[in-house]
Amino acid sequence: MKNLEPTKKTKVKTIPKRASYDVETINKILDDTFICHIGFVAQDHPFVIPTGFGRKENKLYFHGAKGSRMLKALKNGIDICLTVTLIDGIVLARSAFHHSINYRSVVAFGKAEEIFDQAEKTKALKIISNHIIPGRWEDVRKPNDKELNATAVFSLDINEASAKIRVGNPIDDEEDINLKVWAGVLPLKIIAGNPIPDAILNYEMPVPLYLKNYKKN
Amino acid sequence: MKNLEPTKKTKVKTIPKRASYDVETINKILDDTFICHIGFVAQDHPFVIPTGFGRKENKLYFHGAKGSRMLKALKNGIDICLTVTLIDGIVLARSAFHHSINYRSVVAFGKAEEIFDQAEKTKALKIISNHIIPGRWEDVRKPNDKELNATAVFSLDINEASAKIRVGNPIDDEEDINLKVWAGVLPLKIIAGNPIPDAILNYEMPVPLYLKNYKKN
Repeated sequence: MKNLEPTKKTKVKTIPKRASYDVETINKILDDTFICHIGFVAQDHPFVIPTGFGRKENKLYFHGAKGSRMLKALKNGIDICLTVTLIDGIVLARSAFHHSINYRSVVAFGKAEEIFDQAEKTKALKIISNHIIPGRWEDVRKPNDKELNATAVFSLDINEASAKIRVGNPIDDEEDINLKVWAGVLPLKIIAGNPIPDAILNYEMPVPLYLKNYKKN
Repeated sequence: MKNLEPTKKTKVKTIPKRASYDVETINKILDDTFICHIGFVAQDHPFVIPTGFGRKENKLYFHGAKGSRMLKALKNGIDICLTVTLIDGIVLARSAFHHSINYRSVVAFGKAEEIFDQAEKTKALKIISNHIIPGRWEDVRKPNDKELNATAVFSLDINEASAKIRVGNPIDDEEDINLKVWAGVLPLKIIAGNPIPDAILNYEMPVPLYLKNYKKN
């Protein structure tokens, strides 16, 4: 077990017993989803933009159109906050106050670094692609130079990060325990439906195994 | 149809045809989920924190422990960015470059206002509760003064906001159309499992209808 050093920014203040700084715990949450929310400041205003990401070892990778507001801002080497959230259920207590949500989240801070080298960029895009759908990259036409030039790719080291996790039953006040109110957890999860072939898929192609058995989180 | 005025912050720059400023479109996305990511700046650093929310008319409501970093920062009347994201599917193109995600998102800006009046606070908490699980508030013990005092509740007007939506098939380059690669969409959605009764639910309670038929998004 390897722990990240909690910092002023990553130290969980509200219900600290839900916090974890364990690298394995953090990585598992990151690998159970592929959408993050990136916070940054542009023209003195905070922005929060959802985007896909990939992880390899202690780095997160994300990309986008070169001209996008976010990636243009990030070129200046500014601070970001990258947050990942998985919702596992709604926690129903007997009192309104003790309702909660079962979740697993990671909040990571740092300055994202742009990747300029075409070979490194391609490697990063492969990591993102295979993070979202393992095995997909191998099947598709790879990016050409024009496409790589239109794309900005960034990495963020996972050095300053913490996880926060809530699991299990509601915790009611003792005097509420016998109220005649249903209490418990409504589990929520993301499931994949049947793959829908492209309307112009004008040839017979079997659905790839990595889609048939798709599972994240 | 009522449109919000696009501003410097809300005007969608990347693929503007995916943007919408229509109030009904924005509200529908907000109502199809209950988790948002709030971005704010504290000690010169951006933070992004996931939290539950509710909507009524043109206001968003959220709450939390009074001592939390986010709510303490928001007491100063600072700018926030509140982002909501629904992931509807993964879009698989024949080229890596044209892979995408089907999503519906809303980005809203403004200064959140704290609600101090106990009756107004209770009303706001009811809106949040019934946004997350319609009907739940009526069943549970309502917050007492001590609980209200421990809770900070904020509202944000939906005045400066935009939606961004991607739907449908991959859009491949013409020269890739006949590549022998499966292309299409893998739909994703959030589903509710069977409600799990609290381990200490020591009496017979039927599962409420609002849980049996639970559906968001």
